[in-house]
Amino acid sequence: MSNLELKLFYFRNKGRAEVARLLLAAAEQTYEDIRMTDEEWLKFKPSTPYGQIPMLEVNGAKFVQSLAINSFLAREFGFSGKNNLENFKIDEIIHLIEDYFAACVSNIFYPKTDDVRAAERKKLIEETGPRLLGFLEGNLQKSGTGFFVGDRMTLADVAVFDAVTGMLAEFLNVTEAYPLLQKNIEMVRSIPGIARHMATRPITPH
Amino acid sequence: MSNLELKLFYFRNKGRAEVARLLLAAAEQTYEDIRMTDEEWLKFKPSTPYGQIPMLEVNGAKFVQSLAINSFLAREFGFSGKNNLENFKIDEIIHLIEDYFAACVSNIFYPKTDDVRAAERKKLIEETGPRLLGFLEGNLQKSGTGFFVGDRMTLADVAVFDAVTGMLAEFLNVTEAYPLLQKNIEMVRSIPGIARHMATRPITPH
Repeated sequence: MSNLELKLFYFRNKGRAEVARLLLAAAEQTYEDIRMTDEEWLKFKPSTPYGQIPMLEVNGAKFVQSLAINSFLAREFGFSGKNNLENFKIDEIIHLIEDYFAACVSNIFYPKTDDVRAAERKKLIEETGPRLLGFLEGNLQKSGTGFFVGDRMTLADVAVFDAVTGMLAEFLNVTEAYPLLQKNIEMVRSIPGIARHMATRPITPH
Repeated sequence: MSNLELKLFYFRNKGRAEVARLLLAAAEQTYEDIRMTDEEWLKFKPSTPYGQIPMLEVNGAKFVQSLAINSFLAREFGFSGKNNLENFKIDEIIHLIEDYFAACVSNIFYPKTDDVRAAERKKLIEETGPRLLGFLEGNLQKSGTGFFVGDRMTLADVAVFDAVTGMLAEFLNVTEAYPLLQKNIEMVRSIPGIARHMATRPITPH
């Protein structure tokens, strides 16, 4: 818990705000979780610093960019690394996930022909996704603690958890070929604040 | 200076490695700046952890993802913020630049028709770019120190400098409409290590 007054602005869905919500849930931090309709967003947009959400307000100061928000919350609530190399590994993982996220967003939402969309989707599910999951499994093998970095949950674990349970769940198939990853995901799911959040969050397609 | 043994692997161009090179130059840090041809890269690729460069080797440990590399170097060499909110602002700026960078990379390199490429390019130069520059100018107005965050050069200043002098220089036109930004850029350019780097780096199109 922190005395910061926090307001998170986003749409109703998981999308680019869910890692922040999961971090806040894990920290059992009180905050305003403002979920806008498309109409409300269009009215609200001119009052934002860059015409973007997610946006996090911290004691009245407004910041955008999901990865910046997630790293801020991770540092604030003890989910960052203990030294520079640990933070390097966390950042490497979240940026590899981000690349995959961006490719999936393009596949789901951007205008393209049905053929191109289907071919992209097949590659994301059968090739790019398993490559990412294999890298993550290898990282858990190396760390040997059940966590990606050090011996406790960090932003890396939460970002991976969101990747496989959030907007990208339909793309990433964590089979028995990834036993350490399966255990890591269940570990994050069992954190009390996260378990409550998962049980109560709105059901949305993305 | 640090006793870390650092090797930076990338192509000959500026691209996604140049912010790291600028940070290392500003810190006057010794490192191996390994610049590969496309052919060398294809041979080297299987030995990398994720088939990607830039890659930074730190005392033998290999990490990928440019933004992770840049943040690691910023923390190592004193170019990160002094507190969590300062780091939040730095991260917001580097991720807004990254979005613009990704859009320009797509415009320069991705397959598309000449018409689409020209229309995109026009929008990047006349609309998206000025919006980014306006946001940056406003941030310098707010900080009042000549630097984006606090009273000394951070990763934010270096990333902005690279955006307007590196691969994106052809897209971003820092006119007299951005007087604080012009001063900020000259300040970074005058750092001795950076001035030397700029005078000696290979001339490349991107």
